[in-house]
Amino acid sequence: MVNIRYLCGFTGSAGIMVLTRSGAEFFTDGRYTQQARTEVAGVEKIVSKGDPFLQALDALKRGKTKSLGLDFAHLPVATFKQIEQQLGNRVKFKDGSGMIEGLRAIKDPDEISEIRSAVNLGAALFPTALKHIRPSVRESQIAAEIEHEARRLGAEGMSFDTIVAGGARSALPHGRATNQRLPKRGFVVLDFGVILTGYCSDMTRTVHIGKVDAGGRRMYDAVLLAQQAAIKKVGPGVAVSAVDGAARSVLDRAGVGQYFTHSTGHGVGLEIHEAPRIASGQNQKLQPGMVVTVEPGIYVPGVGGVRIEDMVLVTDRGREILTPTTKKLITI
Amino acid sequence: MVNIRYLCGFTGSAGIMVLTRSGAEFFTDGRYTQQARTEVAGVEKIVSKGDPFLQALDALKRGKTKSLGLDFAHLPVATFKQIEQQLGNRVKFKDGSGMIEGLRAIKDPDEISEIRSAVNLGAALFPTALKHIRPSVRESQIAAEIEHEARRLGAEGMSFDTIVAGGARSALPHGRATNQRLPKRGFVVLDFGVILTGYCSDMTRTVHIGKVDAGGRRMYDAVLLAQQAAIKKVGPGVAVSAVDGAARSVLDRAGVGQYFTHSTGHGVGLEIHEAPRIASGQNQKLQPGMVVTVEPGIYVPGVGGVRIEDMVLVTDRGREILTPTTKKLITI
Repeated sequence: MVNIRYLCGFTGSAGIMVLTRSGAEFFTDGRYTQQARTEVAGVEKIVSKGDPFLQALDALKRGKTKSLGLDFAHLPVATFKQIEQQLGNRVKFKDGSGMIEGLRAIKDPDEISEIRSAVNLGAALFPTALKHIRPSVRESQIAAEIEHEARRLGAEGMSFDTIVAGGARSALPHGRATNQRLPKRGFVVLDFGVILTGYCSDMTRTVHIGKVDAGGRRMYDAVLLAQQAAIKKVGPGVAVSAVDGAARSVLDRAGVGQYFTHSTGHGVGLEIHEAPRIASGQNQKLQPGMVVTVEPGIYVPGVGGVRIEDMVLVTDRGREILTPTTKKLITI
Repeated sequence: MVNIRYLCGFTGSAGIMVLTRSGAEFFTDGRYTQQARTEVAGVEKIVSKGDPFLQALDALKRGKTKSLGLDFAHLPVATFKQIEQQLGNRVKFKDGSGMIEGLRAIKDPDEISEIRSAVNLGAALFPTALKHIRPSVRESQIAAEIEHEARRLGAEGMSFDTIVAGGARSALPHGRATNQRLPKRGFVVLDFGVILTGYCSDMTRTVHIGKVDAGGRRMYDAVLLAQQAAIKKVGPGVAVSAVDGAARSVLDRAGVGQYFTHSTGHGVGLEIHEAPRIASGQNQKLQPGMVVTVEPGIYVPGVGGVRIEDMVLVTDRGREILTPTTKKLITI
């Protein structure tokens, strides 16, 4: 559906798009008749009667298609079998996976402007979070305040389940806010983002309740250095694995590399996770217009964790950090 | 992932489960090592190193599996092709679609109790919404208040994008809250739900700002009668199409059947939409333990719309309406 939104602007939850040499057809169901008329652009024909899948199949049967590209990365096997049964005697199928995602990875100026707005709205929530963080407040309460402020500022929603993970829970890389209370002393990882006109923001800051001890300070500094090193590496023509490697080698040198258990980042746009993946073993090259997160973290089981994340735009000459928020360690 | 949660309790976003005669194995990635240890139950082996897909393939290659059921309704073609390539020379593939969904459609007593809690929490948000509805307030502001109260009451999140659709926008069956302001006079459709311990709630009420005219009153009464007729039909052994038909014939008799453009309801549980679908042409029979929505609506383009939705439990003898909220037309 996100690819369809990208191509024609439709924001509903059910639709099929058929692109041919002569133009595009869009199929949805009766719930979306009005919405499709308002939103869909650049399409020759909109059909919103009956089952969109069957309608699209019928249109293809009536047409002269000989070769049909399908999004194998998303198309379920069961649906493909139905398509094969109906069209397989005269149509050849090709894998069109990643074609639209490839286009989407490079943001055009309008999209970059939407993303900037989303990033700035997201960043404006951080002071709200800080205002409510104190010992024994529930993580879910902090999430509630972040999300309420997001709505108040006009966000369409959050781009993923807000992460507020305090104390030992900060060692969970994906610690969605729970009813747990924040500790008297320890790290709190805050990872959140908003959706604005369809585009996502994503940022992480880690703060500390109470005085941070030497071990905690070393953890924080190592992650911050790793994050800065990775950002410095971002630029056109650079392999994503080199960006990942820059973060990883700082953490290895600090002796905490084994606690960095995820990849360094991901593209962000209409979806919170999109191409490219910033990870080891990936040889894709960064290109101007890509927007990616840089978010190394370390997680010591039973002790705590630190993650710092910015969104970064790849420019013609290097990079621009979009997230405007300080990365100095804040203690509360 | 929802099927996996149902089977073993894991709530993370990445995992693969392999079930054999001798037991279950669960594969996830390094982000979820700790979480899997805490959450996963009834599984012989948990693997959280490396790529879960490749690890699961390796385990299957080492094993003696001759016949492998896959969830064709969700498995992407590209992934299936990889599995075929690796295992196809000695393993036969079968479509296991819907097996787990079939189990999930019948809720056990613990699940019904979780759903009751979610429904009651959801219903507790309606007075909050009413308190804020007045002319020229933005729809998104109402959504913000609903969602903030949900968090405050302990919800893990909303079960779908909150719908607040005022005036002419109430004629959009899926009118997610926008920055539009509520009208001086007209219907406002409120459709929202929460997630509590993984289970979803779902309810819709339509209220009216200002005095409702005779036409509006007729619309509301027709939908209410249709909803009550459909609920009365709910019971064990009843075909879902009969429930849909009961709503549809009331609206047809009232001369507004053409404005009822969607199906009557759906199952609710760990997902907001699950089996069974309450629609025409579906011959599935209701069974005790199923929890479904009953939500007819009419939508007059450019004028407005009305929808009323309860969650209903199928019992041994009939039904129980779970949603405790009044369905009398509230004017504001």
